[in-house]
Amino acid sequence: MSNILAINAGSSSLKFQLIHMPEEDVKAVGLVERIGLNDSIFTIKFNGEKDETTKDIENHEEAVKMLLEKLTSTGVISSLDEIDGVGHRVVHGGEKFSDSVLITDQVMEEIAEVSELAPLHNPANLTGIRAFKEILPNIPAVAVFDTAFHQTMPPESYLYSLPYDYYEKYGIRKYGFHGTSHKYVSQRAAELMDRPVEQLRLISCHLGNGASIAAIEGGKSVDTSMGFTPLAGVTMGTRSGNIDPALIPFIMRKTGKTADEVLHVLNKESGMLALSGFSSDLRDIESKSEAGDERAELALDVFAERIHKYLGSYAARMSGVDAIIFTAGVGENSTTVRERVLKGLEFMGVYYDPSLNNVRGKEQFLTYPHSPVKVIVIPTNEEVMIARDTVRLAETVTK
Amino acid sequence: MSNILAINAGSSSLKFQLIHMPEEDVKAVGLVERIGLNDSIFTIKFNGEKDETTKDIENHEEAVKMLLEKLTSTGVISSLDEIDGVGHRVVHGGEKFSDSVLITDQVMEEIAEVSELAPLHNPANLTGIRAFKEILPNIPAVAVFDTAFHQTMPPESYLYSLPYDYYEKYGIRKYGFHGTSHKYVSQRAAELMDRPVEQLRLISCHLGNGASIAAIEGGKSVDTSMGFTPLAGVTMGTRSGNIDPALIPFIMRKTGKTADEVLHVLNKESGMLALSGFSSDLRDIESKSEAGDERAELALDVFAERIHKYLGSYAARMSGVDAIIFTAGVGENSTTVRERVLKGLEFMGVYYDPSLNNVRGKEQFLTYPHSPVKVIVIPTNEEVMIARDTVRLAETVTK
Repeated sequence: MSNILAINAGSSSLKFQLIHMPEEDVKAVGLVERIGLNDSIFTIKFNGEKDETTKDIENHEEAVKMLLEKLTSTGVISSLDEIDGVGHRVVHGGEKFSDSVLITDQVMEEIAEVSELAPLHNPANLTGIRAFKEILPNIPAVAVFDTAFHQTMPPESYLYSLPYDYYEKYGIRKYGFHGTSHKYVSQRAAELMDRPVEQLRLISCHLGNGASIAAIEGGKSVDTSMGFTPLAGVTMGTRSGNIDPALIPFIMRKTGKTADEVLHVLNKESGMLALSGFSSDLRDIESKSEAGDERAELALDVFAERIHKYLGSYAARMSGVDAIIFTAGVGENSTTVRERVLKGLEFMGVYYDPSLNNVRGKEQFLTYPHSPVKVIVIPTNEEVMIARDTVRLAETVTK
Repeated sequence: MSNILAINAGSSSLKFQLIHMPEEDVKAVGLVERIGLNDSIFTIKFNGEKDETTKDIENHEEAVKMLLEKLTSTGVISSLDEIDGVGHRVVHGGEKFSDSVLITDQVMEEIAEVSELAPLHNPANLTGIRAFKEILPNIPAVAVFDTAFHQTMPPESYLYSLPYDYYEKYGIRKYGFHGTSHKYVSQRAAELMDRPVEQLRLISCHLGNGASIAAIEGGKSVDTSMGFTPLAGVTMGTRSGNIDPALIPFIMRKTGKTADEVLHVLNKESGMLALSGFSSDLRDIESKSEAGDERAELALDVFAERIHKYLGSYAARMSGVDAIIFTAGVGENSTTVRERVLKGLEFMGVYYDPSLNNVRGKEQFLTYPHSPVKVIVIPTNEEVMIARDTVRLAETVTK
């Protein structure tokens, strides 16, 4: 019986959940925004109540102090002694971390070392880790990596066909992301199918503003659509996904942009936003498409076609598939996208039942009972995975 | 009854075949190399004989003159009047050309206009066209484009998820290549299967030093692995195929190379050459792999895995597949690659029979008779496609 804080620190934000284990009850959930800017916003929900405070919060340490103060002052916990562990989401673990890990000084150094691979995320994650270390030095802290689950990929999946010393010298390979989510839904799928995950071949579609597909064989990731960075793979909200690499120099020549500027276009001004011409938000695109907007329709066509092809690709990768999972914002909620993605997969044993597809944000099978391949909507829960790993690793420490 | 010259002009080379139609008999085949350099080499084979001449050939016009002189002096034809048409391979037809076309001054201008999309190839192809126009001004000339067959792709396949004005302003889209080969083998597959191509869903694997896969539905290309340029798609001899686009700026930073220098690495120093560490030639890699070389084995693994995944992807694209075709140097000859690519596709109806796979360079089915999906080795023949289109279009002209 313990209380775990699951933390996701960004450069100017801090998301948190206080989770009571092993019941996995969420006792409080919230967010600190605009850290280091004027009028920072602190939001916390607990017991069906919502509390929002606007005040200047100078840095992550202040945010952490305020969070802990709120948890006690609102009575969510009666003292800080009731916090038994803090689990931190860390985006990039490089090749070093294939599992979550208790955070030591050495681990923090190693996270800093791979920051080059995730320059926007790892330093921010570290800021969160340091703030908690400072204020709760005696409470076990655990790092849970987005990349760790994909470290089981074999070389033929993770290696690019590039000079081999790029891999050895610079760590250039496919890492993959959303690992905590892919792992959670794959385990949950096995439970829902009442079969051991070790016997299953699963394709997990994590479709949010960022989107990635994973091929999971026997509980282990064997391939995934994101790559060295989260830019690769399918079309996303504002990201291009895969393109002909020769386009980068071509676009540079045509537009006079630098390589980094083109990369910015690929990350921030491409994807569904570029195709639709007006929004990266799938809900906007769906409603405009229903109203007859051609570019919105085109964006949906492209998005669905890319995901649809990954399903075939990853079924081939595993010599077949037992279940396909939809998760994250779009995957859990978009009837339209799932419909388009799932059409025409009978050849590989997917007998999708449209009458089951009108579901949002809850666990549901979308296939006829006789379908050899199941399709399941599973809301993801990265925080509970962070809490589970934190409990598991915190138990190895004597406080 | 006519004689057609099928021409493939490079910047310093000219390949030719003289084909007697409609029998499609090759009466002569040859190659001029090192045009514009010292000691150019002219090789011609006819009637089982081979004739090789080394002398300085200053330009393509001289090469054409020599070719025509050889054709008559060797008695392959008795006079130039027996040549009824010249068909030219042209690499890039942009969005302008979705079929072969009789070459007029306007067509030559339009080919020049899309040269920007194929700066190494189109200007060389034009040099060949001009040389023949000069010397045989009254003989119909036809351009046959590598990209034309893929112009039937729908927007969801050919559009990148990039700013839409990149498509409108700069022509940035997927074009695809090897179209003449994909078209030839798809038509031949239909004949071998004794079914109309209009009713078939085919996946064609053109695997040579360059490699591309095409999804062909009802005789029309609906998707292909190469993209804006021939760099995209699967691992090739020296080309990387798809990589995370974010790697280009990263490699630039790490190595100090310019974008164009990185592109050179991706085109010339990557692929099987980089993975194996010693050769881009699949035969070398196969024999080293058999001798236990790990990097050779790795290169084969990566190459086969990429192609294998495209088979699943394109089966999904067409809601199933009726036949898979292997063609070009590696596809026609490599038992090892076909074996690795075809393993584990029973889930989509491919029952590969290993006992049929020990075949090189001839038409053969590789599947058990009961296999719902057929696999067929078909040697490609781009020259005969060029000759057919030349006859078809030349017939529309009165000489």
